[in-house]
Amino acid sequence: MKNFVKKIPEGDSNERDVCATCGFVDYHNPKIVAGAVVAHEGKILLCRRAIEPQKGFWTLPAGFLEAHEQPEEGAVREVREEACAEIVLEGLIGIYTVKCISQVQMFFRARFAGAPVFAAGEETLEARFFAWEEIPWDEIAFPSVTWMLQSWKTGVDGIADLGRFSVRV
Amino acid sequence: MKNFVKKIPEGDSNERDVCATCGFVDYHNPKIVAGAVVAHEGKILLCRRAIEPQKGFWTLPAGFLEAHEQPEEGAVREVREEACAEIVLEGLIGIYTVKCISQVQMFFRARFAGAPVFAAGEETLEARFFAWEEIPWDEIAFPSVTWMLQSWKTGVDGIADLGRFSVRV
Repeated sequence: MKNFVKKIPEGDSNERDVCATCGFVDYHNPKIVAGAVVAHEGKILLCRRAIEPQKGFWTLPAGFLEAHEQPEEGAVREVREEACAEIVLEGLIGIYTVKCISQVQMFFRARFAGAPVFAAGEETLEARFFAWEEIPWDEIAFPSVTWMLQSWKTGVDGIADLGRFSVRV
Repeated sequence: MKNFVKKIPEGDSNERDVCATCGFVDYHNPKIVAGAVVAHEGKILLCRRAIEPQKGFWTLPAGFLEAHEQPEEGAVREVREEACAEIVLEGLIGIYTVKCISQVQMFFRARFAGAPVFAAGEETLEARFFAWEEIPWDEIAFPSVTWMLQSWKTGVDGIADLGRFSVRV
């Protein structure tokens, strides 16, 4: 049984969830979601979700960044896991903060590393190419997927040089 | 007493810290650090740390993003807390992933909202303007502060239009 109480830890100025039994402080920092718009000959790779939330709806391959992972690495890993595809990142599309759920979403434009080979991963019912006019807007899983697709379409050429503003240490 | 054990939770593929008593899963996702290079007439605002780690060393005002906070808001808040200054952000300087400590650091270029008024906040011993050639490189608190200052100096003019790639929702 969890036994968290609201409390301001010593040296802190905000109320946190503190375990009344062991004193563990469960800081709720925003989580980073990393993903990619993988395009090939103008078509975009979308995945139909095999898991909740929004099971059966279409999404861009994306997921929570893991510890010690760079956002770029997370995007590559998620595409591998959800669409069984190997990609090369070409630039940052945008950073969207979804405040209500404490997520900072970073999406990258990408191409296939080799041939445009993909398949449904474990969390995916179906992976498919869509031309822009074929995208099933009414069956998109999350609003941020729509925003990212629109940002991708708009084409932010001035910030496409990834190496200039995202450095891995 | 914390009672965490390493375990793969159901539906997960990675080992996590799970409390053997209550089942709480302590996911270790990367944390976002947000901060700013606040410049005025070519001088940069630095803060001498009043707290560990690196107490007594100089840093840019920055800190962990709080729940439901946008990186831009975090940067403004940290400058307010650490240097008692009100700023306006002008653009993203860079995103640095410090993998060893699971931090994704986002720094913004900024100017004072009004007059260049500042003071030492609670976690700061001293806040001060430095011309570029005056920066005490040997007394900088963290390597990422040096990288951010250098990125700021380089000036990434092409990505200075914040609104284009960071959207708040």
